[in-house]
Amino acid sequence: MQPISSSLLLEALNWRYATKKFDRTKKLPTATWAALEQALVLAPSSFGLQPWKFIVVQDAAVRQALSAASWGQTQPLDCSQFVVFAGRKNLDAAQIDRFLDRTIEVRGGNKAALADYRAIMVGSVEKARAGGYLDGWQSRQVYIALGQLLTAAALLRIDACPMEGLDPAEYDKILKLAGTDYTTLCACAIGYRADDDKYATLPKVRYKAAEVVTHI
Amino acid sequence: MQPISSSLLLEALNWRYATKKFDRTKKLPTATWAALEQALVLAPSSFGLQPWKFIVVQDAAVRQALSAASWGQTQPLDCSQFVVFAGRKNLDAAQIDRFLDRTIEVRGGNKAALADYRAIMVGSVEKARAGGYLDGWQSRQVYIALGQLLTAAALLRIDACPMEGLDPAEYDKILKLAGTDYTTLCACAIGYRADDDKYATLPKVRYKAAEVVTHI
Repeated sequence: MQPISSSLLLEALNWRYATKKFDRTKKLPTATWAALEQALVLAPSSFGLQPWKFIVVQDAAVRQALSAASWGQTQPLDCSQFVVFAGRKNLDAAQIDRFLDRTIEVRGGNKAALADYRAIMVGSVEKARAGGYLDGWQSRQVYIALGQLLTAAALLRIDACPMEGLDPAEYDKILKLAGTDYTTLCACAIGYRADDDKYATLPKVRYKAAEVVTHI
Repeated sequence: MQPISSSLLLEALNWRYATKKFDRTKKLPTATWAALEQALVLAPSSFGLQPWKFIVVQDAAVRQALSAASWGQTQPLDCSQFVVFAGRKNLDAAQIDRFLDRTIEVRGGNKAALADYRAIMVGSVEKARAGGYLDGWQSRQVYIALGQLLTAAALLRIDACPMEGLDPAEYDKILKLAGTDYTTLCACAIGYRADDDKYATLPKVRYKAAEVVTHI
């Protein structure tokens, strides 16, 4: 298969914007949403540990509660798919063993052959725990998945609104994450922009490349 | 212009992997790298504040030093472009004003009309500082850019290796970030896989969708 062109890529990335008003009458074709969901599943992460849960909320009452927990923003109500990104807290050796079990399931081999690899991962995780940056490190991985979803959606010409303007503790309660090993980090509404979303036509505000990119 | 197909998207995401061995004889066409650099510039972030610097390191001696500061991994030496992702520390009102100045430059308007918006941003930043999560919040944004770069590269059929196995303090010294408002978070090598990179043919290890995606 062929790569896409650079111009197609940049056209899509310039087309996208954080959609404020979705057209609630338009829903994604099932296959299109399935592809975006798979883009989440395929997202890379440190050591491949996938320290996340993606919660796709379609229930109207739950969406209403999430909207209220998002300063009343309406994207959770009007979008086609509403995804909450939860990150793993207190990652531990059991999660690493779960990942290695999956590795063996997919690639074959056995635990003994992966013992050195396991030791490296456990060592990194325990060092991070001792240093107080374990959850911070893992939570950053979740944003790789968010970035992958946003880029993928733009290329499929699907609108999206990444959202951090929400109360994570309230979200955790509503989604029954409270007391579990996962906690809400952010969300993303997916769907189609309303014809009258005034934000759609505003020029994108980005610093000049020379201000954010340095060449050495 | 047309959206890409879902199957093209998924083919690209399945094609990509964390490249361990680059073909050092192959370099990206200038226009292709320019597009990927622009994908970084266009990455979304919370409030659009773009709390990052992307440092593209082409100098051989600096790359040698970065390889040494990355447990001797060879991707910094063999790739076509080596990008270090630095995140903004202690984001403050001055940065918000810089962003608003750019907003006015791009969209017109004036500072007085943006006063309420400014107050919301400053309020969020100061709340985060008081809560001790300001740098953590901002650093997560940088991983949206990393995700966007990885997805974009895959669609252009360009190989990449996201790297966290590095010593950020050493990187900061080498790149003269020490003492500035920016600090190294991660890096990404970009280029072409070597024909004999054994990792290229290993099946991708991801949890089954049902283990990471929940539907409510």
